[in-house]
Amino acid sequence: MSAEPDRLFESTVESPSPDGTVYRIPSEAESRAAFRRIVEAAEAHRRRGGQIVAVQGLGFVGAAVAAVVANASDDAGERLHYVIGVDLATPGSYWKVGKINEGEPPFRTPDAKLPAILREAVQERENLRATTCEEAYSLADVIIVDVPLDVEDRVAQGAQEIRVGLAAFEAAVHTIGRNMRPDALVLVETTVPMGACERVALPILLEERRRRGIDEPVLLANAYERVMLGPGYVDSIRAFRRTFAGVDEPSAERARSFLSTFIDVEGHPLWQLGDTVSSELGKLLENSYRSLNIAFIYEWTLLAEKIGVNLFEVVDSIRVRTGTHDNMRYPGFGVGGYCLTKDSLLAQWSAANLFGVDTELGMTLTGLKTNYEMPLHTLALAEELAGGDLAGKTIAVCGVSYLAEVADTRNTPTETLLDALLERGARVKVHDPHVVTWVERPDTEVLQSLTHALKKADGVVFALPHRAYTELSAEELLAQLDRSAFVVDAQDVLTDEKAQLLHEAGRRVVGVGKGHWRTRGYHLTE
Amino acid sequence: MSAEPDRLFESTVESPSPDGTVYRIPSEAESRAAFRRIVEAAEAHRRRGGQIVAVQGLGFVGAAVAAVVANASDDAGERLHYVIGVDLATPGSYWKVGKINEGEPPFRTPDAKLPAILREAVQERENLRATTCEEAYSLADVIIVDVPLDVEDRVAQGAQEIRVGLAAFEAAVHTIGRNMRPDALVLVETTVPMGACERVALPILLEERRRRGIDEPVLLANAYERVMLGPGYVDSIRAFRRTFAGVDEPSAERARSFLSTFIDVEGHPLWQLGDTVSSELGKLLENSYRSLNIAFIYEWTLLAEKIGVNLFEVVDSIRVRTGTHDNMRYPGFGVGGYCLTKDSLLAQWSAANLFGVDTELGMTLTGLKTNYEMPLHTLALAEELAGGDLAGKTIAVCGVSYLAEVADTRNTPTETLLDALLERGARVKVHDPHVVTWVERPDTEVLQSLTHALKKADGVVFALPHRAYTELSAEELLAQLDRSAFVVDAQDVLTDEKAQLLHEAGRRVVGVGKGHWRTRGYHLTE
Repeated sequence: MSAEPDRLFESTVESPSPDGTVYRIPSEAESRAAFRRIVEAAEAHRRRGGQIVAVQGLGFVGAAVAAVVANASDDAGERLHYVIGVDLATPGSYWKVGKINEGEPPFRTPDAKLPAILREAVQERENLRATTCEEAYSLADVIIVDVPLDVEDRVAQGAQEIRVGLAAFEAAVHTIGRNMRPDALVLVETTVPMGACERVALPILLEERRRRGIDEPVLLANAYERVMLGPGYVDSIRAFRRTFAGVDEPSAERARSFLSTFIDVEGHPLWQLGDTVSSELGKLLENSYRSLNIAFIYEWTLLAEKIGVNLFEVVDSIRVRTGTHDNMRYPGFGVGGYCLTKDSLLAQWSAANLFGVDTELGMTLTGLKTNYEMPLHTLALAEELAGGDLAGKTIAVCGVSYLAEVADTRNTPTETLLDALLERGARVKVHDPHVVTWVERPDTEVLQSLTHALKKADGVVFALPHRAYTELSAEELLAQLDRSAFVVDAQDVLTDEKAQLLHEAGRRVVGVGKGHWRTRGYHLTE
Repeated sequence: MSAEPDRLFESTVESPSPDGTVYRIPSEAESRAAFRRIVEAAEAHRRRGGQIVAVQGLGFVGAAVAAVVANASDDAGERLHYVIGVDLATPGSYWKVGKINEGEPPFRTPDAKLPAILREAVQERENLRATTCEEAYSLADVIIVDVPLDVEDRVAQGAQEIRVGLAAFEAAVHTIGRNMRPDALVLVETTVPMGACERVALPILLEERRRRGIDEPVLLANAYERVMLGPGYVDSIRAFRRTFAGVDEPSAERARSFLSTFIDVEGHPLWQLGDTVSSELGKLLENSYRSLNIAFIYEWTLLAEKIGVNLFEVVDSIRVRTGTHDNMRYPGFGVGGYCLTKDSLLAQWSAANLFGVDTELGMTLTGLKTNYEMPLHTLALAEELAGGDLAGKTIAVCGVSYLAEVADTRNTPTETLLDALLERGARVKVHDPHVVTWVERPDTEVLQSLTHALKKADGVVFALPHRAYTELSAEELLAQLDRSAFVVDAQDVLTDEKAQLLHEAGRRVVGVGKGHWRTRGYHLTE
């Protein structure tokens, strides 16, 4: 986030975006020239009584938050905020700056609202720009922290093994402290270990400000994001409940009043907690809850398959108990994404390292590990259908992102399956209509043609219920599948009727959690 | 359930009920005389076109089901069923027969509907009687099985150690098979291991019927109960979703039509599953889900206490996420009752013993064990407040049943705490306004006066949020508590304000999951 890295890159350095567009990283002089125009526009906005908001980090959360905040208006329809998105001038990050300045979301999304409000903010309202200059923080009344905070090893066993990469977060906060206005509010949206605001960010900000001779109290709050990719992307920010807390009451009040400018607080009231530790814990707890509930069903999936029960039908029958059981999960392929795969580890790490207390989130971490290993069950089903040996077999894996209809591939369970298939000597063809470049696996080609992917495959794994898969008819599938190909349906992609048609046409089909469709009176692998 | 035991008991043998009333067990001759009157009334009912229903087992489920079925009417308000409740002529069971024939529920309940409909059925509609004569089954069109099915050791480790007491269930089904009409429906409501209908009950019924020369197909279905004690007791039968399945389609159809006579199926449609194994699994899965979700919060309770977070506030802030997180549990004292404490074990046992499959419900069983041990955390808090040694200390434990406002003491976590306190040499006074006799611990006196319980106690544990405790003011509590007494609030009985008042008056207070109320700016044990 510091200015130094800029100088390392000549103007010929490129930053490729996942959709294939390549952005030339501007030289420092070019960046500064562009930034001067941002300063002029921002200061004009402040003179008209508006606020300036800097968003630090333009990933899946920051980019969308920047657009939503820029979209906020007063009762007269006037822009409330001038928003400056900030990210790094590196090949891995700059393309997000480039995309936003063109008025486009950095990521493909099925939510038409995001491209609409982002384009409007950049091109019509002219109150959203992105930059790589850290001086942006010196302009801001509110600085929103949306930087990544990663865990190094997703399957760490026990508190001692967990390594949390706090350095990027600490560096980001230092940058803010070096630049921020004394009375600016720092609002942490990044999912952080408990104590990150009070015990990590606050001391850093105090130290940087002391160096600058600022001794007024820091305004610092936590308001963790609940962003959900998919069709409700924008509304998961604008029309969704939000919890927040300040390191003191003035911080909390500033956070409340700022959040109220872009969240529909009439319909979705803010929830204030007593301290930032509680708020930070809340995020980790809610994602750990979801994660464990997914892992729980996995145990019962294995049981149901072995005794021939279609667990989807049973779960449906239980979910009618609203208020107590309606969030029961279904059998599936695995768990991916940025949050559910790591948040439990942040909690365990914080307990040991930021609070020094001896406590073990045993079931919670077992759940995380279970979810990580879940795709290996799909592998086992494929191996069984391949006669016990996948070596030399061609397997088409349909679905690369971690969620239907989205392009996010972070921690996708498909990667676990892919590695295991390759290890067993299989040839793997990978298909996903939403993923052009698999950012974490740039060497793996993601086919865009399903026909191409299925052609001559010995087996097919449906790893995601993308509409491109669920909307295929049995006839279309049969036309593309080899005579002897098998199908593993890991995500309830096929209806029972389609599975039956495939079966009658001689294809072997098994479904994760389907008890091999025994409850319909037949066993599709026989 | 056989007739033989009757002969073992002279007419002087007594059966004491938990409320203190003692019933004389009638002689066989007396029983038969009473039963002849039941036969006459039942046959008259059949001549008028009505059905006869036998309920096997008059415990918390069977007694209430019998009353609800007897309460069912046709459109003209005419009684649909004549109901005969059947239980054993033993000191431990007969009192239920005695109570029902007096028109009273065997158990205290906060639901005023149950005594009302039971009294009406026995005294006004005259279509409900209880008996110990197994010939009752020979009269019935429908036989509902509500017998207990116990697990011997609640904390069995691993599938091999689990012992399920199937003998009582098997004996009950034999009794039915020896007596039932060929075309009667046997409806199993008891929570059973998967396979109990198809692999246990069905062969027994076929065998007994074969001996009697009956070779038509058995009508057998599973429709597991979701009875909840407490204020919604009757409606948890009559106005609640019900899942069912038959061993074949005629069985399922008979079950559907019978269930529709006493369940409000307009508002609460029945849900049919493809086979009884799925239905049996459903019950075990739904209770295991609840159980694991309670255990999950326990892990986070320990963490929250150690880092000073009031977990109640955090859980409240998360529960606003309806549909995904609104069933998150709160910190608490432990888990009791008949279902959540054992159903996971039934599933694991069935997998190994009825299906012979090798599968481990690891997290599920860890959750069960966690819940069993949870009261020991309350013990640890009490021990800490007692200066590390409970020997010779007098501890008042408030709450014996497993749920607020009910009298059911089965598997109550209070028993775990009591044993641990006694083991540490504490003197224990036990109080519960709803429990006159602690059936499972007949030697432990349950005080009915709270003043008496609190008097001269060194420490008080609130184990349940009975209204008798939550409605106490801080002043009332202070007036009864010793100057140096401490309070452990294990179930969110005290509001933060009351805890603060007690604290200011010099009493030491800690609350499970309250982070010692740190978020309120003070630490109540300091």
